[in-house]
Amino acid sequence: MSEAMRVAVLHGVHDVRLEERPVPQPGPGEVLIQVRSVGTCGSDVHYYEHGRIGDFVVEQPLVLGHEPSGVVVARGSEARLHEVGQRVAIEPGVPCSVCAQCKAGRYNLCPRMRFFGTPPIDGAFCEYVVLREDFAHPVPDSLSDDAAGLLEPLSVGVWANRKARTAPGSRVLITGAGPIGLVATQTARAFGASEVVVTDVNPRRLEVAKELGATATVDVSEESLTDTDFDPDVLLECSGVPAAAGQAIRKVGRAGRIVLIGMGGDEIPLPLAHVQNFEIEVTGTFRYANTWPTAIALAAGGEVDLDRLVTHRFGLDQVEEALTVAAKDDTVIKAVVVP
Amino acid sequence: MSEAMRVAVLHGVHDVRLEERPVPQPGPGEVLIQVRSVGTCGSDVHYYEHGRIGDFVVEQPLVLGHEPSGVVVARGSEARLHEVGQRVAIEPGVPCSVCAQCKAGRYNLCPRMRFFGTPPIDGAFCEYVVLREDFAHPVPDSLSDDAAGLLEPLSVGVWANRKARTAPGSRVLITGAGPIGLVATQTARAFGASEVVVTDVNPRRLEVAKELGATATVDVSEESLTDTDFDPDVLLECSGVPAAAGQAIRKVGRAGRIVLIGMGGDEIPLPLAHVQNFEIEVTGTFRYANTWPTAIALAAGGEVDLDRLVTHRFGLDQVEEALTVAAKDDTVIKAVVVP
Amino acid sequence: MSEAMRVAVLHGVHDVRLEERPVPQPGPGEVLIQVRSVGTCGSDVHYYEHGRIGDFVVEQPLVLGHEPSGVVVARGSEARLHEVGQRVAIEPGVPCSVCAQCKAGRYNLCPRMRFFGTPPIDGAFCEYVVLREDFAHPVPDSLSDDAAGLLEPLSVGVWANRKARTAPGSRVLITGAGPIGLVATQTARAFGASEVVVTDVNPRRLEVAKELGATATVDVSEESLTDTDFDPDVLLECSGVPAAAGQAIRKVGRAGRIVLIGMGGDEIPLPLAHVQNFEIEVTGTFRYANTWPTAIALAAGGEVDLDRLVTHRFGLDQVEEALTVAAKDDTVIKAVVVP
Amino acid sequence: MSEAMRVAVLHGVHDVRLEERPVPQPGPGEVLIQVRSVGTCGSDVHYYEHGRIGDFVVEQPLVLGHEPSGVVVARGSEARLHEVGQRVAIEPGVPCSVCAQCKAGRYNLCPRMRFFGTPPIDGAFCEYVVLREDFAHPVPDSLSDDAAGLLEPLSVGVWANRKARTAPGSRVLITGAGPIGLVATQTARAFGASEVVVTDVNPRRLEVAKELGATATVDVSEESLTDTDFDPDVLLECSGVPAAAGQAIRKVGRAGRIVLIGMGGDEIPLPLAHVQNFEIEVTGTFRYANTWPTAIALAAGGEVDLDRLVTHRFGLDQVEEALTVAAKDDTVIKAVVVP
Repeated sequence: MSEAMRVAVLHGVHDVRLEERPVPQPGPGEVLIQVRSVGTCGSDVHYYEHGRIGDFVVEQPLVLGHEPSGVVVARGSEARLHEVGQRVAIEPGVPCSVCAQCKAGRYNLCPRMRFFGTPPIDGAFCEYVVLREDFAHPVPDSLSDDAAGLLEPLSVGVWANRKARTAPGSRVLITGAGPIGLVATQTARAFGASEVVVTDVNPRRLEVAKELGATATVDVSEESLTDTDFDPDVLLECSGVPAAAGQAIRKVGRAGRIVLIGMGGDEIPLPLAHVQNFEIEVTGTFRYANTWPTAIALAAGGEVDLDRLVTHRFGLDQVEEALTVAAKDDTVIKAVVVP
Repeated sequence: MSEAMRVAVLHGVHDVRLEERPVPQPGPGEVLIQVRSVGTCGSDVHYYEHGRIGDFVVEQPLVLGHEPSGVVVARGSEARLHEVGQRVAIEPGVPCSVCAQCKAGRYNLCPRMRFFGTPPIDGAFCEYVVLREDFAHPVPDSLSDDAAGLLEPLSVGVWANRKARTAPGSRVLITGAGPIGLVATQTARAFGASEVVVTDVNPRRLEVAKELGATATVDVSEESLTDTDFDPDVLLECSGVPAAAGQAIRKVGRAGRIVLIGMGGDEIPLPLAHVQNFEIEVTGTFRYANTWPTAIALAAGGEVDLDRLVTHRFGLDQVEEALTVAAKDDTVIKAVVVP
Repeated sequence: MSEAMRVAVLHGVHDVRLEERPVPQPGPGEVLIQVRSVGTCGSDVHYYEHGRIGDFVVEQPLVLGHEPSGVVVARGSEARLHEVGQRVAIEPGVPCSVCAQCKAGRYNLCPRMRFFGTPPIDGAFCEYVVLREDFAHPVPDSLSDDAAGLLEPLSVGVWANRKARTAPGSRVLITGAGPIGLVATQTARAFGASEVVVTDVNPRRLEVAKELGATATVDVSEESLTDTDFDPDVLLECSGVPAAAGQAIRKVGRAGRIVLIGMGGDEIPLPLAHVQNFEIEVTGTFRYANTWPTAIALAAGGEVDLDRLVTHRFGLDQVEEALTVAAKDDTVIKAVVVP
Repeated sequence: MSEAMRVAVLHGVHDVRLEERPVPQPGPGEVLIQVRSVGTCGSDVHYYEHGRIGDFVVEQPLVLGHEPSGVVVARGSEARLHEVGQRVAIEPGVPCSVCAQCKAGRYNLCPRMRFFGTPPIDGAFCEYVVLREDFAHPVPDSLSDDAAGLLEPLSVGVWANRKARTAPGSRVLITGAGPIGLVATQTARAFGASEVVVTDVNPRRLEVAKELGATATVDVSEESLTDTDFDPDVLLECSGVPAAAGQAIRKVGRAGRIVLIGMGGDEIPLPLAHVQNFEIEVTGTFRYANTWPTAIALAAGGEVDLDRLVTHRFGLDQVEEALTVAAKDDTVIKAVVVP
C-alpha cells in the first residue's frame, strides 16, 4: 500500500478539508484497515454545524466518521484474530478494558473510552484506520460494505431493544423515523415484537418505516398520539424532542419500559404519578456493548435490511456534501461516504 | 364480640366523626380482625386536609388508616390459614388476582385493587376489619402491635430497595428522612448497603436517621448535596420535592438506579444527558408486592427497628389529633392510633 | 344446547369408554365452552398405557385431554370477559391464585393447581367444559380450531425459551424432534435465534424440523452429537432420554443455559466440572405461566405454524385410536380429537 | 529491596523446596507487591498431594498460593492506580480483557485466564509478586494482612450468593462447613438471609458455623438432612460430595436456586422430576468476577469475620507443614503462610 492517504479533516464549523496524512501503523494487537464505507450520522452533522456536542468540543482538527467498514490490510505484532484480506465491520469505540465499568461488562460506560470522530479522537473519513483487533468484527460476504458500516447504527437499535427487554408479543412505540428509529423498528420486529407503531412528522419516512416492519405509523403533525388507542409496553424514544418524549411517556402502560435514545433538550419532563402508578422503568442508552455479533446475525439472516437505508453515496472529497445533503433533501435517510 | 363497633369516619375536609357501625361479617375466605394498632400516614393527612389525592376523591364518608395490625377473632367459610387468636399484620390492598398484572406477580399494579383508606374503600381507623385471609400475615410475639402495623411502611422500603437492587457494597443516597426515608434507610442497610447517606432539612430527623443506620447525613438547608463527594449508585427519592429530586439525580453514577418513592409535584425534570451518558435506570414505586414475609423477617430479626419510629399514640376518639399532630410538633415521626 | 353430552372416559389402562354426562354448569366467574378441538399429548398416552405418571395415579374414572380450544356458549354469574360466541383457546390449568407462588407470578408452581386431565381433575375429551373465564383466551379468526388448541404445547415452547433467555443471535441446540421439540424449534427462531440445531433418531421428524426453521439437524442414530462443531449457548432438552441429555449438556458453552423439558428417567447425570467451569445454568420447566398472549401473537403473526403439526384427526368416539396411532405409525406428529 | 527472594516451589508430589529467585520486575501497568500473608486452600493441598486437578497438571516446577495480600513496593511504567506503600489484597487471576467473555463482564470465564498457582502460572508462596495494577485492591487499615488475603475465599462466597440471589428473608442451606462453607455462611447473612442452616460431619466446624452466623446446624453423621423440616430456597453446595449434594438438592423448594461450589466427583445425580416440578435453577461457580469491592466492604464493615478463620500460621520455609497440617489436626480451619 502507499505510504500516504487522503483524509477529510474538520478544521472548524463548516470547514472540512481533504488532506494527505501518513498511513497509520498498527501497534501491538492492532490491525490496519482499509476503509470501504462510512455512514454519516447526525452527530457528524452536529460537529460540522456547531463544532461541539455538549461537553465535547472540537478544539483541534478532527476527522469525523464512526460508521465504517473495511478490509484488514496489515496486522501489528501479536494481532492474531484476523487474516489479511478479511472484510470487517468496525466497532468504533475502544475502552480501557481495565476499569470497573469495563470489568462489569459495561465497557460503553468506560470513562476512558476512545471513540471515533469524538474529540480528540479521529474517525474514519479517510482511507486507512488502525484498530484494536478485537473491535474489528468479520462479516460474511452476504453483507455489503455499506451494510457492514451500518452495523453501527444497528447496534444502537439492538442495545435499545435489549434495554427495553423487547420480546415476542411486545407492543413497541417508536417516536422518530430517522435512521435510528428505522433500525430500532427493524430490530424490535427481529426481537419478536408483535406491534411496532412509529411516529414522525415526515410522511416519507413513515412510509419507509412501514416498509421495514412497522405495523402502524402515526403522522404526529396530523394526528395526536394521545388520541390513538395503542397501548405500548415499550417506548423507544428516538426523536430527541422533549415535548414529544413527554407525550409518548404517558402512553406507556403498567410495568412498561422506556428507553431514551434521541438526544436533544436538557431535560425531559417526567410525569411522576404516571411513572409511579404504573411502575414504569426509564433509562437512556449510551452507544452499546457487545452488540456486533447480534447485529451481524440479524443483518446476515435478512431480518434487518440495512442497504435500504442508504439513499446517497459520496466520495471522500465530498464529505461536506454528505454532511449537508440531509438538510436540503428530505429524501435522504442515510448518506454514505465511500473512500 | 359485640355487634357494634366504633369507627372514625372522614366526612369531609377537617371533619372526622366517631360513629357506631355494625361489626362486619367475614365472607368466604375472609377473616375478621380486631384492630390493635394503626399507623397514620402522610396520605391519611392529605385526605384529611384536602379531601383528595390526585384522581382519588373522597365523595362519600370514608374510613382512613392503612397501616394496621390486629388479632384474628373469627373466620369466614373456607378460611383455613389462621386460627382464631392469631396476631397478624394486615397487608391493606387486596387485588383481583385474575388480571394480567396479578398473574404476572405484579398485583400492586392491579387496576381493580381495593386498598384500605383509598376512596371508596374503607380503612382501619375502627375496631374490626374483614380481610381476605391471605393478606393477613402472622407475626411472631417478638413484634409489638405497633411494629406489626408499621410493616406496611417497611414494605415500601423493602420494595424500593428491591427495585433499586440494593446489595452488599451498595452506596445509597436517600433524600428525605420522614418515616419512609427512615425505613428505607434501615432497609438499605439490611440489604447490605455499605454507605447510606440521608438528606433532609430537619436536623432532628437526620439524628434519627443516623441512629437507625445512616452512615452520614446532609442537612440540605445548610450544605449543598452537590458539594459532597458522595458517589452513590442508588438513589431512593423519598422527599417528593421535584427540585431536590432533580439535584439528587445528578449525583448518581454510572449504571446507577433511581427509585422515585416520594409523591409531590407533577413532573420531575429528568436530566437527559446524565441519564443517557451514565445509563441510569429510573423508576417509581406504587405500594409493594410480596413484601410482608421479608418485612417480618427483617423486623423480627432485629435488623429493622420499627418501634423507634413511634413517637405519639392516640385513641380511636383522637384520630383528628393523630392526623394533625405532625403539623404542630416537629418531634413527630409516626403517630399511631390504638383502637 | 342439549343437557347431556358425550365424554370419553378413561376407566383404567387401555380402557376408554364413550359415555353420557350432564353438561356442566358454569359457576361464578366461569364460562361454559363447547370444545372444538383437543390435541393429544404424550402424557395422555402415558396415562392410557400405564394408568399413572409418577405420583399422579388414575384411581377413579378420568377424562383426559388438555390441549383444547372451543367457543364460549354460556357465562356464569359475574363472568364478564367474553361474549357468548367468542372463540377461545383454553389454558388448561387453574391455580388457587392466593398462595405465595401465585402471588409471585409463578402460578404454574401453585401446589393447589387444578390441571385438565391430571388425576383427579377431568380434561377435555368431551363436548363441553367449564373454565374460570380468565383462562379462556380469545383467538383471532385467522387461527384454526386445531391451532388454538395447540397453543398449549406452543406455550411449553415459549416458556422454555423464556427460561433459556433465547434472544437474537442465540445458538440453540434442541434434542428431540417430537411435538415439543418442533414447537421449541419454531419458538426459538421467533425469539431470534440465529442457529437452531435439532437432533433426533427419526429422519422424518428431522425433515419437519428443517421445514419449520431448524438451521441444521443431526440424526444421532448415525452421527454423534459430540463430533459436530456446533457450539450452542442454549440447550432445550426435549428428548427425556438421560443419556442423550448428559451428552448434550457437555456441548453447551460458557455461560450457557440448559432447560430440561423432556420427562423420563429419574436422574440426569450432571457433569459437575463442566457446569462449574463454564458456569452453566440448568433448570427444568413445569408447564408455563403467562404464555398465551405471546403464543397467540406468534401463531397469529405467522411466526409459528401449528397446523403443520396436525397429521391425524379423530372423533370423540375414536379417542383410543387417537391415543394409540402414534405407536403404530411413525408419520404421526400430532393427533387431534374433534368432538 | 534486595534483588533475590525466597520462593517455595512445588517440584512434584510431596516435594516443596525453598529456593532463591530474582525479584520479578513489574511490566507496564503492573505493580510489584511484597507478599504479607497467603492463605492455603484445598486446591493447593490437592496439587501437593496429587500433582494435578483434573486437566490441570503440574508439569514443571510450580509456585502455589492464590490467597495473598501485601504492600505495593514498586510500579511499572504507566501504572498509576496505587502509591508505593499501599496495602493491597490481590485478586489472583488476570484475564485477557479482550475476549467475548471478558467484554461481557464474565472475566472469570476467560479462556486465557492466568491464575496464580494454577499450572503453568506461579502463585504467591514467595516474597514478591508482580500483578496488573487493577487486580490489586487497596484495603483499609482495619483489615489485617491475613484478612486481606482471605478476601479471596470470601469472594467465592460473595459470588455464590450473588448467583443464588440470596436476599433479605432467604432461607439458605449450606452443605459443608469448611472454609468455603464458613465464608458462604457469613456472606449469606450479610446478604440478608434470615435462616442459614449448615451441615457437616465435623461438630467442631459446626460450632464455628454457629459462631459465625448459622441459625442452625445439622451433623449429618448423626441426623439425616431429609428428616429436618427446613425448607430452603437456596442451596450452596460446598461439600463436593455427590451423594450429599444429591440429597440436599431434594430439600430445595419451589423456584429455588442451587449453586454447586464444592468440587469432587465427576457427576452429580440431578433428580429430574424435582428440578422440573419445582423449576429449580442449578448452576456452578468458577472463581468470581467483580467481587473484591463487595468483599472489602463486608470485611471492613465487620459483617464478615475473616480473622476468625485463621487457626494456624507458618513461615515461607514451612509451606509443606501449612499444606499438610489440616490432614493431621482437625482443629485447622485455615492455615496461613506469612513470608
